[in-house]
This record gives sequence, structure tokens and C-alpha cells, in this order.
Amino acid sequence: MDFSSKFLENAVNEVSRLPGIGKRTALRLVLHLLKQPKEHTKYLTEALTQLRNEVKSCKRCHNISDTILCDICSNSNRNEEIVCVVEDIRDVMAIENTGQYRGLYHVLGGKISPIEGVGPQNLNIESLVEKVKNKEVKELIFALSSTMEGDTTNFYIYKQIEKYDVTTSTIARGIAVGDELEYADEITLGRSIINRIPFANSLKS
Amino acid sequence: MDFSSKFLENAVNEVSRLPGIGKRTALRLVLHLLKQPKEHTKYLTEALTQLRNEVKSCKRCHNISDTILCDICSNSNRNEEIVCVVEDIRDVMAIENTGQYRGLYHVLGGKISPIEGVGPQNLNIESLVEKVKNKEVKELIFALSSTMEGDTTNFYIYKQIEKYDVTTSTIARGIAVGDELEYADEITLGRSIINRIPFANSLKS
Repeated sequence: MDFSSKFLENAVNEVSRLPGIGKRTALRLVLHLLKQPKEHTKYLTEALTQLRNEVKSCKRCHNISDTILCDICSNSNRNEEIVCVVEDIRDVMAIENTGQYRGLYHVLGGKISPIEGVGPQNLNIESLVEKVKNKEVKELIFALSSTMEGDTTNFYIYKQIEKYDVTTSTIARGIAVGDELEYADEITLGRSIINRIPFANSLKS
Repeated sequence: MDFSSKFLENAVNEVSRLPGIGKRTALRLVLHLLKQPKEHTKYLTEALTQLRNEVKSCKRCHNISDTILCDICSNSNRNEEIVCVVEDIRDVMAIENTGQYRGLYHVLGGKISPIEGVGPQNLNIESLVEKVKNKEVKELIFALSSTMEGDTTNFYIYKQIEKYDVTTSTIARGIAVGDELEYADEITLGRSIINRIPFANSLKS
């Protein structure tokens, strides 16, 4: 791409460094900003700068927060003895949206993935093991992706904490609500049969 | 979406105002920036701010430029008597990439679209008519989208300049190079037959 302006080229290059945004999309976004009043660009850049410089990581659960302890960790109505282990803050938002969970979270910040160069030392695993060791936690719920990396991470953490007195569970895998059996894959369907639940329980919620 | 941080919410809202970017994509982009070193956000915001504040519109062709006259308009090797009329600067880049055109451009900044509230007065049409009136131009090439809005804009401009001594042409519509006839739509195929060219001409370039 040949640009008629160095400023334009520079802006397009920076925007296209974002994940999933190629040069053409970047050009479209940047030209959109040029057509809008200058305030739009000002608000956008200020919001990003402020976020990057001001935002904190909750020192207890590593969720993104404006304060030292996030709103969930500092809420006295939540059950502090149950901790749900998730990959990132989007998972916290997703689980919070269900309204079904009243415990705390622990955000790992990713999952073990040798291909992407992410090892256990890059994740918030040590602080989780500390919590278990100090008996702050009675139950750990693993809520990671059902992928090779997710399972590896689950297993790694499990090996670190199995010697301590803590209950561990993993979120149920099975047929999604609304799904038809014939379209489910065999592994999911197989697991949903092995991990069947009393019918009366399925009437709840 | 419930955010655990006001800064995060604000940043996601601003990013999702960009065209084609929803809240989920915005969240993904913003979380990516949070994982990167602070410099990435700094470079990105600086590039956008600089672009928005410093970039100019070429006073002759309205192309984006860092100087008063863009590189194309100030290039003495280009034929100043031929002007190609395009919608926006992406079209200039696309035509420049072909390496087939040595004239100048005139960037309208859009096309007439009553639905989107864009009338002739919102486009750089007056300055184009002035160029024709002042006999700066011998040939105008219309290179707008082959849509209702593009055709309307072509026609509107044509009506403004037909009384002056200027040749007008429009880029050829036809079967794309590499396309198979059976998949072409009837209108395109029909036009490509009506506007057939001497076979010898098709051997050039």
C-alpha cells in the first residue's frame, strides 16, 4: 500500500498491529476518524491512554479493577471460600452475567500453551496455590476452556494443590440448553451420559 | 455488559464507536492493549492524534496529504489535463497501484446518497466544476462505484459540466480479468458486449 501521507501510513500501521485487524480494515477505521469531528479521536485516545495507565489488577483475584480490590472481592455478600478459576476477565463477565455464582474468582491471565510460549510461570498460578495453602479456599471450580490447553492448565494446577485440603470441581460439559442430540459431537454426548444428574436437579433454576 | 472497571468500560465504548466494531470486538482489542507494553498504547494514540491534527487535504485534488499540494499534484511528470474523479482516497490508492494512470485525481469525498443525507453540497463538486470552467482540464474520467449512488453522482457532475469544452469518459464495466462468463451477471455481460473493444487493444498492457 502506497500512502499519500506519512501520518496516515503511521496511523494505519499502528492500528493494524491490533489482533484481527489488517491494513485494509485499519485504513477504513482511520479514514472514518478523519471524517468525524476531532473530538472523537480525542475521546478515543484519551480513553485508551487512561485505561492503560490507570487500570489496576485486583490484588486478590487479578480481575481488572479501578481499585486495589475489585468490586467482587470487596463484596461481603460473596462466599469467599469458593473460588472459580478462569482464563481471563471476559470469562468473569460471562459467569457474572448468568447470575448463578456467588463465590469469588481467580483470573489466570491465559492458559498454558507451549506453542504460544505461555508457561505456568507466565500465569497467576502461584498466588492461587498460596490461597489454597493458606486455607483461604474450600472449593476450587475450574472453568477453563474445554481445549487441550485448558485441560493441561487444569491438570497442572490440580497437581500443585492435590496435597492440600481443598475440594476441586470442573464446570459440567454436556449438551447445551436448546441443542438437539443428533447434532452433538460424540465426546460431548458421551460425557453428558457419564456425568448424568438426578432428573429432579435439572428442574431447578 | 457489566465491567469491573470504569476505565475499561469507557475504552470499550469509545472503540466500539468505530464502524464495524461491536462491544465484544472492542473488549478483545482493549484487553490486547492491556497485555502489551504501555508503549504500544502510546504509539497508537500518538499516531491517531497526530494524524487527526496534522493531516491536510490537498488543495487541488482533496487527496490526503502532509503538504498543501499532494505528491501526485506536485509531480511535474503527470499529465495535468486529465483528471480522474473518485469517491475517496482508497480509490486513488487502488488506481495508483495499477501503475496504468499518469493523470491527476479529484477526490469527491463520497457520493450523492439521499438515504445517508449526503447531497452535492457535501462533496467536492464545486471545485471540480471550477477546474473545468477555468479550462484546467481536458478530460474527466469518472471512476465511481457502479451503484445507484455512483451513477447519480456521475450524472449530477455531468450535467454541471456538459456546457463546457471537456471530454468525459467512464471506466470500462465488463467481465473481470480471470472471471468465467457463466458466473457473470446479465447486466455486466450485456454491457461488456455493447462496449466491446478491438481485439488488438486487448493484447496491450
